[in-house]
Amino acid sequence: MTLNSNMNILIVGLGVMGGSYARALTKKGFRIRCITKDAADIEYALGEGMIAEGAVEVRADWLAEADLIVFALYPKTFISWIKENGHLLKRGVTITDVSGVKSGVIASIQGLLPEGVEFISAHPMAGRERSGVAFSDDSVFTGANYIVVPTEKNTEKAILLCEALGRTLGFLRISRLDAEAHDRMIAFLSQLTHCIAVSLMNCNDAPDMEKYTGDSFRDLTRIAKINENMWSELFLLNKDALLAEMDAFAKEFADFRALLAAEDAEGMKEKMRASTAKRMKFDKPKGNTAL
Amino acid sequence: MTLNSNMNILIVGLGVMGGSYARALTKKGFRIRCITKDAADIEYALGEGMIAEGAVEVRADWLAEADLIVFALYPKTFISWIKENGHLLKRGVTITDVSGVKSGVIASIQGLLPEGVEFISAHPMAGRERSGVAFSDDSVFTGANYIVVPTEKNTEKAILLCEALGRTLGFLRISRLDAEAHDRMIAFLSQLTHCIAVSLMNCNDAPDMEKYTGDSFRDLTRIAKINENMWSELFLLNKDALLAEMDAFAKEFADFRALLAAEDAEGMKEKMRASTAKRMKFDKPKGNTAL
Repeated sequence: MTLNSNMNILIVGLGVMGGSYARALTKKGFRIRCITKDAADIEYALGEGMIAEGAVEVRADWLAEADLIVFALYPKTFISWIKENGHLLKRGVTITDVSGVKSGVIASIQGLLPEGVEFISAHPMAGRERSGVAFSDDSVFTGANYIVVPTEKNTEKAILLCEALGRTLGFLRISRLDAEAHDRMIAFLSQLTHCIAVSLMNCNDAPDMEKYTGDSFRDLTRIAKINENMWSELFLLNKDALLAEMDAFAKEFADFRALLAAEDAEGMKEKMRASTAKRMKFDKPKGNTAL
Repeated sequence: MTLNSNMNILIVGLGVMGGSYARALTKKGFRIRCITKDAADIEYALGEGMIAEGAVEVRADWLAEADLIVFALYPKTFISWIKENGHLLKRGVTITDVSGVKSGVIASIQGLLPEGVEFISAHPMAGRERSGVAFSDDSVFTGANYIVVPTEKNTEKAILLCEALGRTLGFLRISRLDAEAHDRMIAFLSQLTHCIAVSLMNCNDAPDMEKYTGDSFRDLTRIAKINENMWSELFLLNKDALLAEMDAFAKEFADFRALLAAEDAEGMKEKMRASTAKRMKFDKPKGNTAL
């Protein structure tokens, strides 16, 4: 099965990520159905022309007709949904997700699915600090990274379909990682950064700081505006990997503090030269001027 | 003396910040002279139409003719320059700077100046992670903060002139702080953020991370591309205040780690709600859509 616009795509969960998927796929000519819990979100999406049809109840007929289903739910909600409704999925359907952690999620979901339903997990690396369909925006996919997380249970056909979905959404770089490597990576690149941003925002209560701030503090704390329900869930689902990354960062930070306390200018400069060289690689590929 | 375009303004030091001042002031109709050490920078600035005249040697006649001199040098270079050339400054001239630390710098400079020369210090809160006049860009001042740092030796007239300079450059919010409050503030808002970015960039050596990264890691490490000479100098000049802020952050970060280790979801959510509420105030005032 290759991705084509005659394919019947269903999105389950119309939040900021499900909404962004809907916008991107509708623009590419797909006819998108959506199941979500809040009628107001369906109305909004219909009004925006983001989806063709929406429902607030689980429509067994839609599940049966779908070729590809995207679950854009929090990890635990995703697992509960499959427990309750997995038996309605038809043989031959491919399902994918957007979950920010993988090891526990994939194992749970693959253990719950009926025969003939294939789950290929993916992580679109383009979040927003705001939640809800009203903040959905498919332009965030442009130039961004998309990670497919196969297991030994996946077929190459489903992996290729998932990669094609990433390209169709507008992602630039599509990679594959196994679940454990993904979770270690995400603990460092995404979860640790959120822990740092929250702690930086909370560590000083002096008033009026916004009158004096420059862009560096704004950049480091953009994600301190955070969806506490989603992120606390993600942190707990990836606790060991995140704790390890937090410890590595705390050690590196303490090393830098020691250099400053010792007035070791050359030692600090070495750290800065290393960080400068390493950061060069992380600039967004051209086409996005914001970075 | 009020700021007007007949005023003779001299910029000493044509790097990224001096260059940005030159661009902004020339656009506003000022005739800008510049003294800097590298002839190529003068040529570049003349070619760009950023300055009217430039020199690589210290021109005593230009110093004598200036009404306002902006020193856009690193702090220690600024102090050395005044030691060597301060006697050439004429009575009645006002001088200002762009230094990122204040207590030590202001005391040193005010102690060195001849009678009748007034130094009013300022900190434009709009840096770039790249150095050199070729990266100068006055658009970074739009919507940004500008801090004037008077001492008891300053006249209200000079303070008002310095504030007018900030407004003319395009800064939105002009504030006053005393030197110690400035240095505590800058240790938190600017220096701590750079220590965090450098440490985050250096704390994990896994390869290929750029293939998987999202914007949060990019944002938190933008300033890990850092001018090591300038920043190590600034850190050492503000060591005690910076160490205190580093310790406060490290403690807050350790507290968050403890909540995660204890699987205290509610405790983590409380921290996140607090950071979300605090961060709201830091959005750039409208008119700048990048934040």
